[in-house]
Amino acid sequence: MKRASIISIGNELLSGQTISTNAAYLSERLFSIGIPVVSSYVVGDDVDSIARVLRLASDDGDIIVASGGLGPTDDDVTRQALAKFFGSELQLQDGLLERIKNFFTKRNLVMPEKTKVQAYIPVGAKALLNNLGTAPGIMAEYKGKLFLALPGVPAEMKDMFEEQVLPKLTAAAVDQVIVTRKLRCFGTGESAVAELIGGVMKRGRNPLINCTAKHGVITLHIVATAKDKSTAERMAEEDEEMLRKCLGELVYGVGEQTLAEVVGQKLARQKKTIAVAESCTGGVLAKLITDVEGASRYFTHGWVTYSNQAKIKELGVSADLIERYGAVSEQISEAMAVRARKKAEADFAIGITGIAGPSGGSEQKPVGLVYISVDADKHSETKRFIFRDDIGLQTCGNDTAGVSGNRQLIRLRAALTGLNMLRLQL
Amino acid sequence: MKRASIISIGNELLSGQTISTNAAYLSERLFSIGIPVVSSYVVGDDVDSIARVLRLASDDGDIIVASGGLGPTDDDVTRQALAKFFGSELQLQDGLLERIKNFFTKRNLVMPEKTKVQAYIPVGAKALLNNLGTAPGIMAEYKGKLFLALPGVPAEMKDMFEEQVLPKLTAAAVDQVIVTRKLRCFGTGESAVAELIGGVMKRGRNPLINCTAKHGVITLHIVATAKDKSTAERMAEEDEEMLRKCLGELVYGVGEQTLAEVVGQKLARQKKTIAVAESCTGGVLAKLITDVEGASRYFTHGWVTYSNQAKIKELGVSADLIERYGAVSEQISEAMAVRARKKAEADFAIGITGIAGPSGGSEQKPVGLVYISVDADKHSETKRFIFRDDIGLQTCGNDTAGVSGNRQLIRLRAALTGLNMLRLQL
Repeated sequence: MKRASIISIGNELLSGQTISTNAAYLSERLFSIGIPVVSSYVVGDDVDSIARVLRLASDDGDIIVASGGLGPTDDDVTRQALAKFFGSELQLQDGLLERIKNFFTKRNLVMPEKTKVQAYIPVGAKALLNNLGTAPGIMAEYKGKLFLALPGVPAEMKDMFEEQVLPKLTAAAVDQVIVTRKLRCFGTGESAVAELIGGVMKRGRNPLINCTAKHGVITLHIVATAKDKSTAERMAEEDEEMLRKCLGELVYGVGEQTLAEVVGQKLARQKKTIAVAESCTGGVLAKLITDVEGASRYFTHGWVTYSNQAKIKELGVSADLIERYGAVSEQISEAMAVRARKKAEADFAIGITGIAGPSGGSEQKPVGLVYISVDADKHSETKRFIFRDDIGLQTCGNDTAGVSGNRQLIRLRAALTGLNMLRLQL
Repeated sequence: MKRASIISIGNELLSGQTISTNAAYLSERLFSIGIPVVSSYVVGDDVDSIARVLRLASDDGDIIVASGGLGPTDDDVTRQALAKFFGSELQLQDGLLERIKNFFTKRNLVMPEKTKVQAYIPVGAKALLNNLGTAPGIMAEYKGKLFLALPGVPAEMKDMFEEQVLPKLTAAAVDQVIVTRKLRCFGTGESAVAELIGGVMKRGRNPLINCTAKHGVITLHIVATAKDKSTAERMAEEDEEMLRKCLGELVYGVGEQTLAEVVGQKLARQKKTIAVAESCTGGVLAKLITDVEGASRYFTHGWVTYSNQAKIKELGVSADLIERYGAVSEQISEAMAVRARKKAEADFAIGITGIAGPSGGSEQKPVGLVYISVDADKHSETKRFIFRDDIGLQTCGNDTAGVSGNRQLIRLRAALTGLNMLRLQL
């Protein structure tokens, strides 16, 4: 079995200014074609450091994939480091220079002199063409190992990897095939899912089943390894069926599907429409729905009624009701959903009211308390939730990256839960 | 000068299932106290691999900070790897075991037998207490170098690092001080900012000035190094003043401030209110505004009028006007802002209409065309933008992480631009 090692190059990665997503992307893609990544290095823009890490990585793997440091400025030295490591020289490639010049000409720009350096690659290496930018990639075999240097800009790296590198690697990785599937679940915690599916998550099992959690979405990864593709696919298929049986309606989708996509597809297929009335989520629910391309087929109206006055005036929620039960109550979330559905003349409406915090909570109504209602033609459903950034969430690992603190987490969990309640009615 | 090396431990990091944010966090924090990170390694949950990387890292740095692999399950082997590398044994620490047991008792839970392993640390090492979970950290000196092993769960790692590690390191890093400042800018591109500030971004300058871009927000990092804190602060201060002079009103804030925070502070201070009417941004603008704690002081009403009917019925935009100019036009964005301000009885309103794509564009009205209006008591301002996922955006580096594709980018850029237009009126 071939093994890979990954190198991420750039001072900005060492100083913590940028989080490299390239390594994770490359790992996942390599893994999917049966090439496990056995080590990963981050190194600054320095010829000797890069050359050292190239040596370390080639001790670990048969395929060494580097990204970054191919730009036109003086701090981009991956080219030089490769040449140094191979013990060769950089050589101008006329065809590459022509291509880079064309890149600028097409955009009515003059090629800056500095850019010319990108047309140099080590003697004996092959250039990988860049369809989205000026930096060519580099591919070379050296002492029986395959070395790839890709641009650091994620879009360019991905395009080059998918179009030019992956086909070559797939052809080489003939000894075994890995098929992966993802099942997306919503509506319970990671440990509850683990209990429902029993002992299948143990290490060494084939297919391997892993579980990750992010913002309440639980993803089950099925990784089947076999000698040929059809066997691996059958194994993954069988496990998917088994998991679906255990988890029932907790499973909302597969692959990269989001809850909003699945709900949107169902609405579009049934030719139904949805309106939303949000208080504490302040637009998060409407955003999730309209993140999906073509959402205008089923989504027409959203209200962000952040103040009581807005709830009363824009939605027609009764001022007495707010007075009597408070704005954060099942009565008000229901009234918001009912009124929004009526005003928008929609088939469904979701109403959300709660306390996102960090302040504004009390003993009776703590931060994280959220009422969510789904109103439909025949009936209205309201549920009470307390979303907490407690130990249960913290142990989800790295999954709060990109969400700053509890307030954002509560808002997102509430909006997703609203979508999930609607999904179960569709 | 002391130097650090970072090790991220976990199979999930090598398989690409999880993007480690710990390394970036640690880098930035170490850098801020004058300890540059010179290398960073990612390694799987394997005793020999971790021991090897501990050796590599201790070749690079004086301080080695590892995170991950301290959990209670069989795949958590960082403890064993440290003991192996130090050539020592693991030893049960009664005080630690007591603490871990208490963690469960307080939560009315029984400690699982497996958890006991977390109370073992290498002979001669010191435990770091975990205030948020069960996994203690480990600190040890070996051959003149300082080794730290922290939990992989970001919240636990951060708490332990800030409370117990940083004070110790700060005391040790006496030979020089690094002061960093961030200036946040909005309203032009990265290259335009670079031109405005002239040659100060060159390498080797002190303070060092770096520029990063994310979703249209340009951040200038000022990094001043000096023998003492007051000198470094004065140097950073002088550069901040110089940059502010060059950039004028492009600078909207400092540190981690978002546009929505700055706009919110101004509104709250001036006791003004804001309403929004969104079409293509579909709730993104309301979300950005309500991401800020206490937004209810100035934000009361938002409309997501995704359909023409919603614009007409809910906002009272004239059907004739839509018929005549189309929903994506300066007339409609202005009407949306004017009507929203009136209905909400707000001091300001922002109206946004455009084509977020990927479909729905035409030659006259391409994907990315967005009209944004800010209506105020005295006057109304409308601007036309074309937001593109062109080369200019792609070359921003890793900054599209978390934003899937062009549609989301256009929506976010439009909402931020609306906030920026309002900022310039406040």
